[in-house]
Order: sequence, then structure tokens, then C-alpha cells
Amino acid sequence: MNQFVDGEWVTDYDPTNEDGEFDRQPTSFRDTVAPEDVEAGRYHLYVSYACPWAHRTLVTRKLLGLEDAITVDVVDPYREEGGWQFTPDKEGCTADSVHGSDYLREVYVEADPDYTGRVTVPVLWDREEETIVNNESREVMRILTDRFAELGNGVELAPPALRDDVDRILDEIYEPINNGVYRAGFAETQEAYDGAVTELFDALDRWNETLADQRYLAGERLTEADIAMYTTLVRFDEVYHTHFMCNHNLVREYEHLWPYLRDLYGTAGFGETTHMDHITEHYYTTHPDVSPKRIVPVGPNPDFEAPHDRAELPGEPPV
Amino acid sequence: MNQFVDGEWVTDYDPTNEDGEFDRQPTSFRDTVAPEDVEAGRYHLYVSYACPWAHRTLVTRKLLGLEDAITVDVVDPYREEGGWQFTPDKEGCTADSVHGSDYLREVYVEADPDYTGRVTVPVLWDREEETIVNNESREVMRILTDRFAELGNGVELAPPALRDDVDRILDEIYEPINNGVYRAGFAETQEAYDGAVTELFDALDRWNETLADQRYLAGERLTEADIAMYTTLVRFDEVYHTHFMCNHNLVREYEHLWPYLRDLYGTAGFGETTHMDHITEHYYTTHPDVSPKRIVPVGPNPDFEAPHDRAELPGEPPV
Repeated sequence: MNQFVDGEWVTDYDPTNEDGEFDRQPTSFRDTVAPEDVEAGRYHLYVSYACPWAHRTLVTRKLLGLEDAITVDVVDPYREEGGWQFTPDKEGCTADSVHGSDYLREVYVEADPDYTGRVTVPVLWDREEETIVNNESREVMRILTDRFAELGNGVELAPPALRDDVDRILDEIYEPINNGVYRAGFAETQEAYDGAVTELFDALDRWNETLADQRYLAGERLTEADIAMYTTLVRFDEVYHTHFMCNHNLVREYEHLWPYLRDLYGTAGFGETTHMDHITEHYYTTHPDVSPKRIVPVGPNPDFEAPHDRAELPGEPPV
Repeated sequence: MNQFVDGEWVTDYDPTNEDGEFDRQPTSFRDTVAPEDVEAGRYHLYVSYACPWAHRTLVTRKLLGLEDAITVDVVDPYREEGGWQFTPDKEGCTADSVHGSDYLREVYVEADPDYTGRVTVPVLWDREEETIVNNESREVMRILTDRFAELGNGVELAPPALRDDVDRILDEIYEPINNGVYRAGFAETQEAYDGAVTELFDALDRWNETLADQRYLAGERLTEADIAMYTTLVRFDEVYHTHFMCNHNLVREYEHLWPYLRDLYGTAGFGETTHMDHITEHYYTTHPDVSPKRIVPVGPNPDFEAPHDRAELPGEPPV
């Protein structure tokens, strides 16, 4: 992996600890947007369609009706030695409309000339202050939910009555599921892999049961928790099952997770932000330590648009 | 990969051609056993439980009731730089009971001091002539079927009336299916992979249809063709789907192939010669160019013993 270390761009950084476990670095920009600073056109998102963390913010932006308020640039799904880059001639990708940079790492240096760490998406950029507000996907979701609500359509993705539940579920699914697929795939030892993959499938089993009689993770309302679950599940059968060897089950083998995933896919904001070509190209060509031949497999092409009966459960989509 | 080249043991042999396609070398020992030489205790099989080609001969030996007539040694599923080796202390493995060698390559040199090529299983060894009779799995199956019938239980695996069909089916399934999973997994270019995997799933679709209304590949009788299909299918969901990225479908998603596989698994000679621990260890730890971390994934653990209704079709198992 590549990242900044003491001002140098290093391309052989080892992200595992001494036990061979994948150790995700904490994100560095953890600010928020003050209520008085909220205005349309001031803030900008850098995303990759491939990345589940960035994908969370794209779904949130759509669900809240913030397309006109917050602009977006999209990096190339192939992350080479220079890190995420802008290749506007490639399908689905854009230039850096704010800085005109070639690599996302230039945006990080713009925000902090001494930046040390990985260069990741999403990035919430503040045009006024000329810096990165936040690059932690869960916090960016919450900033949009809380601060930008007034610029959007009035949808609530973490309503006060459910907020504790939403935060608890976001906590509960992060380590075993959202980060769990990476912990399985990047494990350097059998023990590290076994631990991660056991936690992953135990958690999927539990949430599958929970979804037997409720439409969404927090009950009758679609929340940020569903967005966080979605961006992992929608990548599972095409990528995590094969590339990260999470091959105990496919999502489409789960009685409730699979129709739940299709229900979300068909909800405004979800399917339309899911670009499977970017997703598969990214993972299979960017991690030679996992898939050294850089070949994109045929994949199962799950039919995300197949009918389901989730609408019979209490609750309905927000938009 | 490793093999002999001009009398030297080479450990970095590239098995792909200039188009990045896996080019399986022809096997070298292609002799047969003369009728007058057939006797119990004279011939010996070297196999790996992991290898689908060797597995064919083990099933054949069991189905024909030749356990007492033909002895067997089993190599370590982990094939390291020295090639297949004998590690009698490991579960399921044996010593080389004929030569006491540490590596199977010594047996090849014993048969031919100038041997050039890969050191593969199965090997049919002749104790009398002190040489390898044949190391081509299809021919070893046929030698057992034709020549050793009199020492066994009278089962026919390529009966005269069906022999043309059996040979045609063996031809038809070899390139797209039996060798196809390797062509997909060892492909060095996207084009080579795409070609192999398309042929593979087209062929699986066709045979799935064929098996809708017939119990075995050649009709009502179990033949060598079923053995050849079995040793690929039984490895598919645990290995080829993930390791070789043949991830369009799982065998257990096919309406007829999956019960067909379970039917065979439950037939004498099949399930009892299937050692999934050797199979998964071999593939995932022996091909660092495919799975560089050498981690054995959790796998789907298909329930090969689940009930099926194949017995309602015409035909019955040979024993």
C-alpha cells in the first residue's frame, strides 16, 4: 500500500501488524461543519465509486437530496503507485474540479503540507477554508445528515428517537462486517484470517435473523446503518467472496439479507450510485498482494432487480 | 512451477504460452499393461488426494474392487519447491513403499534418468520392470478398466456398447471443464481468462441440461466419464470458484449438476476417496502466483450428503 510517511510518498507500506492482522489506520481529518457555515456550493466530496466508505456518502447525499448543494468528483477505480488519481477521460471518472490535480494526494497536501498517512476517500472539502473538513465516512454521513438537512428534502437518516440505535448498529457492524471483509482479505496469517472470517459470518447470520421480521436494521425506518450495511453487502458476491476469500456463503444464499439488499438497491440513492464496473476493476487490479494476476473475474452478476417481498414488512423507503 | 529441464530440477518454470494461456504439457509415460503381465501386487499407484487427475484413478480402483490388486502411496498435499513429496507422519499421507524416496521426482528419475518435464500424479508403477507404465490419468483409468477387470469385481466402466460415447464425453469435458478450471486460474491475461471461463460455464450449462433426464453422462450407466466429471465438480465450490476465480456460479447453484454430484458422492468409491482437507491445503498453499498469502479459506462446506432424487431416473450405481 502507499501513503505519506514523514513527508515522503511511500509505495510499499505494510498495513498489517506483527500478528499478521490488517490494522486500519485511523483517519486524520475529523472536523465538522458549523451550522453557520452550511451553504450550497461551498462543500465538495471526493469519492471513488469502488470504495464502500466513499459510497456511503454518495448514497447519503442522494437520499437527502443534496446533489445541488454538494459537488462531487470521482477518482479512477484503478489505484496505482501514485494512489487515487483523476483520469477524466475514463468512463465514470472526473477531473478534480476544485484543484485540477492529477492525484488525490495533492489535495491532502493542500490541506496539510505535513500530512502523514494514507490518502483515502471520501474527502469532504471546504472551498472557503481550503481544507479537508473530514475524511471519516461515518462522520461525513452524519455531517450531511445533521448539518445539511436544511438544504435538502427533509429526509432524516438518524432521527432523534432512533439515534442511539443507529449509532449502536453502526458500531456493531463496523468491525465484523464493514472492516471484517478487509481483515479477512488482508490477513497475513491463517489465524488472523480465521478470526476475521468467523466474526464476519457470525455477524451476517445474526443480522440475517434480525431482518426476518423487520424491513431495516433499526426497525421500520431506513437509517445511516442501512447505508453502511448496503455498501458492504452490494460488493460481497462480486468481490469479497472471491477476492477476499470470504467464501463461506454468498449474500444471495441468505434468506433475508439477500431480499434486504435488493430492497435497498431498488430504493432511490442506492442502485443508482452502485457502479459495479468500478468496484470490480478496483479490487481485482489494485491489490497484487491478494490477486497478483490483476484479472477481473466473470463474477456472478447477482440480479439486484429481482422482485422481493420486503414491502410487506412495516416501514417504507424515505423517498 | 517446477520440473526437470535437461536433467536439472527447475523451480521457476512458466507454464503459460506467449498469449498468457496455460499450456498443459503432455504426459510422457504412455505405455500400457499387456494382458499377460496383469497380476495382483505387481503394479502400484502414486497419487495425491488433492489432485483431480490422480483422484480419477483412485475412484476407478475402488469401483473395480482392485484395492487388493493394486497398492497405493499418497504424497503430501503441500507441493513445495522439491515437488510432490512423501511425508508419512502427516494425516492421510504415506511413505513411498516401493522406493523409500523422499520426493516423487526420484521415482521419475528411477524410471528415466534423463527425464524432462513435470513430475505429476497419478503414476502407475510396474514393480517387475521397475519403471513407470503410464502417468496420463485417462489412460490409467482405461488400463484399470480394460486390463485389470479380471482381478476385480466385474464392474464395467467403459462397456463396449458405450465405449464410443464414453470416449467422446471424455474428450468433450476435458478442455472446457477438467482442464478449463486450470486454464482460467493460471491465465496470465484477461483475454486468456475470459476465453477459458466462458467455455467452462457454457459447458457446465450444457451438461446441466443433459443431466435433467439422465442419471449419468452416458445415460443409464455410470462410466469413466462420470469419474472424470466428478473429480472436477467435487473441487469446484471449495477451490475453483474462489482460487481459480471461476465465480460465475457455484456447482450447488445448478439444478441438475448439484444433485448429480451428490449422487456420485454417495456412490461407493467416490465420497470415500474425497479428502477435502488435502484438496484445499494443496491448492491454496501451493500456488503463490494465484493465492500469494497461502491462506486456506473457510469455504462453503457443501453438504454432499444431502438427499437427492436422482435414484428416480433410470439406471443405478455399479456397486
